Amino acid sequence: MSYPPGEFALIARLTARLSQSRRVVLGPGDDCAVVAAPRAPQLVTIDSMVEGVHFEVGWASPEEIGARALTVNLSDIAAMGGLPTVCVVNLAIRAGLSARFFDRLYAGLGAAARAAGVDIVGGNVTRGTALAITIAQMGEVRGAPMRRDAAWPGDEIFVTGTLGDAAMGWRVLAGKLRARGAARKFVIDRWRNPIARLAAGQRLARIRPVPAAIDISDGLWQDLGHLLERSAVGARIEAPALPLSAAYRQIAGDDATLALSGGEDYELLFCLRPGASARALSRRLGVAVARIGVITRGAGAHLIGGAAPRHGGWDQLRGPG
Amino acid sequence: MSYPPGEFALIARLTARLSQSRRVVLGPGDDCAVVAAPRAPQLVTIDSMVEGVHFEVGWASPEEIGARALTVNLSDIAAMGGLPTVCVVNLAIRAGLSARFFDRLYAGLGAAARAAGVDIVGGNVTRGTALAITIAQMGEVRGAPMRRDAAWPGDEIFVTGTLGDAAMGWRVLAGKLRARGAARKFVIDRWRNPIARLAAGQRLARIRPVPAAIDISDGLWQDLGHLLERSAVGARIEAPALPLSAAYRQIAGDDATLALSGGEDYELLFCLRPGASARALSRRLGVAVARIGVITRGAGAHLIGGAAPRHGGWDQLRGPG
Repeated sequence: MSYPPGEFALIARLTARLSQSRRVVLGPGDDCAVVAAPRAPQLVTIDSMVEGVHFEVGWASPEEIGARALTVNLSDIAAMGGLPTVCVVNLAIRAGLSARFFDRLYAGLGAAARAAGVDIVGGNVTRGTALAITIAQMGEVRGAPMRRDAAWPGDEIFVTGTLGDAAMGWRVLAGKLRARGAARKFVIDRWRNPIARLAAGQRLARIRPVPAAIDISDGLWQDLGHLLERSAVGARIEAPALPLSAAYRQIAGDDATLALSGGEDYELLFCLRPGASARALSRRLGVAVARIGVITRGAGAHLIGGAAPRHGGWDQLRGPG
Repeated sequence: MSYPPGEFALIARLTARLSQSRRVVLGPGDDCAVVAAPRAPQLVTIDSMVEGVHFEVGWASPEEIGARALTVNLSDIAAMGGLPTVCVVNLAIRAGLSARFFDRLYAGLGAAARAAGVDIVGGNVTRGTALAITIAQMGEVRGAPMRRDAAWPGDEIFVTGTLGDAAMGWRVLAGKLRARGAARKFVIDRWRNPIARLAAGQRLARIRPVPAAIDISDGLWQDLGHLLERSAVGARIEAPALPLSAAYRQIAGDDATLALSGGEDYELLFCLRPGASARALSRRLGVAVARIGVITRGAGAHLIGGAAPRHGGWDQLRGPG
C-alpha cells in the first residue's frame, strides 16, 4: 500500500473504525497487512465495481454501494462453498465526491464485512476518472471446494432464489425499462442489495459427491455455459421451470429473457446427482431452490419451451446485454 | 471473478500461458483460486496503477507496464521482509488498446511474476475509462515482519539504492523536465523498470532486533513521516548524505528536492540500532546502502544541510508534487 498525505489521511479515517478479529496480526497502516496462517486451503478472488460501467452514484446510497462491492466478491466465495476471511480494498476516487460520501461508503462496506465475518485488513486509494471499488477477497474451504468442472451427465441443475430481478432493477434505474409501485421497488432493491449465498454454499459443499457450482453474476445462460465448458458436458434447461419473482412476472410477464441473460443475480447454480427434491434442498440450504434442468452428454445448453438468448448476457467489455 | 464472453475469452487467453507452482490447487478459471494453506503468517497488500494518474501508455512498453504493476506491489512485500507467493490481477481496460497490447502486458507481468516466484492465480477484466491494473499480492513472512512502528530513538536510518531517479524519469516523460543523453536514459529506465528489494528485505528481516522499515513509494520525506508517526519518534536527516546517482547530479546538480519528495523509488528505508556500517550492510544485502540520518525523540523530521520539502511528495489524490 502506498499512502500519500491526502490518501493517507483518507484511508486512515476510513479504516480507523474497522474492528479486527483475532486472525489479524497487523491491520491497515503498514506496507502490508499480516494475517495468521489459515489452517485450510485458501480461496482468493478479485472483482471490481466501476462507476459508469456497473453503476451510477445516484442509483444507490453510498452505504449500499460499499456493501454491494463486497457482496459481489463474497458471492464468488459462496460459489466455492467457502468461508470468507479477509479482504483488501482499492478505491479509485474522482473529483466531486465528498468526504462524507466516502465515510458512508466505508460504513456500508464495514457493516457488510462484519455481517459476513470478514476483516478488511488493508486499503489503497488512488485518483481515477471514475469511482471504482476493487476488492480482493480471501476465504477458506474446510472440505473440498465446489468447482465448475465437476458436473456429470444426468446431474440435475438447481438455482437458488429468483432470476432476472436485479437485471430488471438495473434497467429501471438506467431508464431503459419502466415499472411502477411495489414491483419497481422490489427489482431495484434486488439490484441495490444483492445477497451472497454464503450459508447455502457452505451447506452445499458438504453434500457428497461435492456439487459442481458457479454463482450467477453474468446471467444464467452465460454462467451455465462456463460450467458446461469446464465440465465438458451439455445441458437441457426447461424455460417454464425458471424461478421468476412475482415482481418480475408483473413487469415482464412470461418473457424470460432477463432471467436467462440479465446478470447480477448473485444466486448459486449447482448440479446434483439425480433424486434430490427442490423442497428438501430449500429447507436444507435456507433459501428457495428450483430445479431448472439436467446435465447432458455433448456440449452447449438447450432451452426447452422458450427461446434461448441470442447472446450470452452481461458483457462487462460491451456493456449490458 | 466474473467472466462475460468477451472478458472470459480475454482473461482465458491472457492466463493460459501462466504456469503454476505446486502451491496452486486450482488456478484461474473458477469462481476463486484455491491455494494451499501457507505455513507462516500471511502478508496481504493491494496497489493500483492508473493511466493518466501514474503513467501514460506511450511511456513504457506494454511488457514494462505489466511488470511495473507487479513490482510496486512486490515492494510492499519487500518492506515487510516477506516472500511473495500468489497474486490476483484486476484489469480495467478501455477502448483503443489492442489484443496484442494486452498479450504483451501480460507477458511482462508473467515474466516478472516468474522471476519473483509469484503465481498469478486469478484475474478479472472490466471495462473502464482508463487502463488500470490493480493487483492484490500475498506473501509469507518466516520470522517477524519488519513493521513501521519499531523505530527507536538513537537508531540509524539507512536507504537502499539512490533516490529521486524515477521521479526525474517521470518528469522527463511527462515533458516537465529536460534531460539528454545517458542521464536521460538512466532516469527514464529507473522509472520504467523499478526493482522490488525482495532479497534485501528478507535479509534485513533476519537482523535482531527486527528493523523498522518502509518502502519509499511516495518520496523519502513522506514515507519517513509515516514511519516516524507510527513509531512516535522524530528524525534528523543529513542532506549531503542522501544517495544521488551520477545521472541525478548531472540533471539537477545538488538540488535534492526530487530525492526527498519525488516518489516511486521503491527503495527500502530501514532503522538499525547504532553501529552498523553502510559498507557491511551493502555487502550483506546485495545492494548499495547509505546512512542518511538518525531517529530522535520527539516528532517530525528535520533536514540538516538543506531545505526540507514544502509538502510531502507524490500525492495520488492531487497528482505529482
